[in-house]
Amino acid sequence: MKHDAVIILSGGLDSTTLLYDLREQGYALTAVTFDYGQRHKREIAYATRTCERLDIPQKIIDARVLHDLAPSALTRSDLAVPEGNYDDETMKQTVVPNRNMVLLSLAAAYAIGIHAGHLFYGAHAGDHAIYPDCRPAFVDAMTAAFHLCDWNDLVLSAPYLHLSKGDIVKRGLSLGVDYSLTWTCYKGGEKACGKCGSCDERLAAFRDAGVADPLEYE
Amino acid sequence: MKHDAVIILSGGLDSTTLLYDLREQGYALTAVTFDYGQRHKREIAYATRTCERLDIPQKIIDARVLHDLAPSALTRSDLAVPEGNYDDETMKQTVVPNRNMVLLSLAAAYAIGIHAGHLFYGAHAGDHAIYPDCRPAFVDAMTAAFHLCDWNDLVLSAPYLHLSKGDIVKRGLSLGVDYSLTWTCYKGGEKACGKCGSCDERLAAFRDAGVADPLEYE
Repeated sequence: MKHDAVIILSGGLDSTTLLYDLREQGYALTAVTFDYGQRHKREIAYATRTCERLDIPQKIIDARVLHDLAPSALTRSDLAVPEGNYDDETMKQTVVPNRNMVLLSLAAAYAIGIHAGHLFYGAHAGDHAIYPDCRPAFVDAMTAAFHLCDWNDLVLSAPYLHLSKGDIVKRGLSLGVDYSLTWTCYKGGEKACGKCGSCDERLAAFRDAGVADPLEYE
Repeated sequence: MKHDAVIILSGGLDSTTLLYDLREQGYALTAVTFDYGQRHKREIAYATRTCERLDIPQKIIDARVLHDLAPSALTRSDLAVPEGNYDDETMKQTVVPNRNMVLLSLAAAYAIGIHAGHLFYGAHAGDHAIYPDCRPAFVDAMTAAFHLCDWNDLVLSAPYLHLSKGDIVKRGLSLGVDYSLTWTCYKGGEKACGKCGSCDERLAAFRDAGVADPLEYE
């Protein structure tokens, strides 16, 4: 019997790979994609195209309230997106305070509403240093909260929490993920910039996996 | 030195009493009030009037996304609000799945953004039976998650978690709370209906405290 599960699908590398992975494992999936006013709207469009291709229902949730609460370089067009490596202090400008808890709790509300017992998301090892709410201890704490938030249990899982982005790409290639339908760049251009912290990390992941990124860069 | 704190102020009995209480204790408060498309908009207006009277800054956060995610008797005008006691099975219709986690996480994002170290909310003992996310264990789990969601610690407190609504009213009377500026009824009428589960509970609290409710009823 297939378990009903909700997956948070951003349209990036990690969540798209996880979508293919869980589908392979036989979960009956519904994807939740957030529109939080991000500059990189293309990732939402790519998430939709992946869902259409795999015949997976998708719910787009309006989370633009984050913009109002926590203006940052990701949602405000008057701030420049920092370039360079994720290790740089400047990348902390891209942190929307408490973003993951907000998005997880919205996805959980939706999952409970459709009686899904599982909620998956694609946090991975590389996020830990920058995003406090991507650390394993935070995921454990949220898992504990989800056990208590409703009379019916909701299980939260982040299966890639201990994988590097390079490992995720390797896994995705074995699952047949079409990475030309994933978007990573934080800028809103026609092609990926290849310079922002996010592009930098993606390109490193493909180098690690020993394959070329099928995406076009400026 | 005053500690900067955010309080979730619905405009109801519990949170309004807590506002007066924390102000008395010397916290430098900012109130956060949610507009989630509730029928009882009057509670938002009353929250605003209380803030104006006490000269406390108020941030109204648009949480209408809850309406989209989890239609329930509180946000949909096509469903009747159940009447009678909170113990009734029908009152479970008023539960928006995971509502408290969504609202707490939004308030936390705002609190982190303004560098407040404390987040308070007015969950109380009477909520436990109906709302899974008002149980002490849930508050503990969220407290643990808030310790981890940001590099700067955010302390979550629900000081009334073990008080009855009657005890809260007694406390509020000693603090000089103007309960004519609080709203409880789930229906959207000019006067409180006096019949819905929420009115029923409020009237019982005033009976417990041995005073008359200053609010007008139909």
